[in-house]
Amino acid sequence: MLTKNQIKLIHSLKQKKFRISHKMFVVEGVKVVGEFLNSKYELVKVFSCDEVYRKYDSNFIEVSFEELSKISNFAAASKVLAIFKIPSSIPVDWTGLVLALDSINDPGNLGTIIRLCDWFGINDLVCNETTVDCYNPKVVQSSVGSHTRVNITYLDLESVLSELKPCYGTFMDGNSVYDHKLSEKGVVVLGNEANGISKEIEALIDIHISIPRFGVNKKTESLNVANAAAIILSEFKRKSIEK
Amino acid sequence: MLTKNQIKLIHSLKQKKFRISHKMFVVEGVKVVGEFLNSKYELVKVFSCDEVYRKYDSNFIEVSFEELSKISNFAAASKVLAIFKIPSSIPVDWTGLVLALDSINDPGNLGTIIRLCDWFGINDLVCNETTVDCYNPKVVQSSVGSHTRVNITYLDLESVLSELKPCYGTFMDGNSVYDHKLSEKGVVVLGNEANGISKEIEALIDIHISIPRFGVNKKTESLNVANAAAIILSEFKRKSIEK
Repeated sequence: MLTKNQIKLIHSLKQKKFRISHKMFVVEGVKVVGEFLNSKYELVKVFSCDEVYRKYDSNFIEVSFEELSKISNFAAASKVLAIFKIPSSIPVDWTGLVLALDSINDPGNLGTIIRLCDWFGINDLVCNETTVDCYNPKVVQSSVGSHTRVNITYLDLESVLSELKPCYGTFMDGNSVYDHKLSEKGVVVLGNEANGISKEIEALIDIHISIPRFGVNKKTESLNVANAAAIILSEFKRKSIEK
Repeated sequence: MLTKNQIKLIHSLKQKKFRISHKMFVVEGVKVVGEFLNSKYELVKVFSCDEVYRKYDSNFIEVSFEELSKISNFAAASKVLAIFKIPSSIPVDWTGLVLALDSINDPGNLGTIIRLCDWFGINDLVCNETTVDCYNPKVVQSSVGSHTRVNITYLDLESVLSELKPCYGTFMDGNSVYDHKLSEKGVVVLGNEANGISKEIEALIDIHISIPRFGVNKKTESLNVANAAAIILSEFKRKSIEK
């Protein structure tokens, strides 16, 4: 049975300002909640109509599926919704390959990029403050639990990039990512869905790279940023094992 | 000014059965409508609050933004919505590299894959009948006009694959796409988001390929199918220009 305060808390966590003030976020779905439960993330409460979550003792709140439908952030509710603590930040390890995001707006794109970092063994993802919040419910769902294996840090991208080399950035007219020598360490910057990398950040980039376009027409304006991330990370990693 | 019949027609085109019976589909947004207007697709009607579309004479229907909001398939309406004819099918050119989809469900994934085909110069995309309809409004929007440069054909995948070689398929445990020799012609099959390639189609595949997973944990269960398509097509094309 849900209390009014619990409903109010869960609804408030849709908004970034309340996630920050409460230091909490919401996760839904058996698979994704399972990934967070099996990680270092600290469970606050798990709401479910399934007895399997009773093992979380005082953190378990038994609710009906109708109640879950009311508190879900999605059109189709799942049989479990959980609240976790937002962990304190872990220092970025700049000695490896780090992916940096400049103002990614779409939650689905950020979630997919987190999943890609996990797949390609990128431990650190850094984002400027104008990138969508990684604890946004849609980001959490589309990363399918990869949050638990990728360290995501929000910082002032301009100030850190000025001290890091090599710094790669993706552009429409850069060097082919297929031909260019790619380092096993450094930073790779991906830009906003509509506007690409900002002028201020472009000024800090050492190497402009791009994904070659094929076909006779070559009219495709751009690739979706998550697809660009997939290809770029794949190329960096492919070259790292070819050496 | 919209007539009741026009509203009824536009709403009916949300459903595949009515798109098939009317041989029409809906496109929204300045950019995407523009791509279709500059293509071989036959315009039926263009509804807009912008005078710029008046040049389409009797096909232009001037409407208010409020009317567009009522007929839009999306939460945020655009200032233009158009109806186009579904063209008759063009024979598949099996002499190049063809991408084949086995039961892709998500409209956003199909739209993104169409855009990837366009980027990588894949002229033919073939889908089995259980793949989401390419004239679904969400597919049309997420392909951002690439529909006009990729020939999409729905067919019985099992019957055509049995006669085509080489036939590649993506699996979790296949040969690394980085190391394996990739042909410049043949078919590459991508499977359903949750279940992968069906057993029936797997039996027709000559070469199992996969995208290597990196990182110490290697716990990421899978990549999003559109991201997998991005990496696989990128590798096929990279190798084709390296020869």
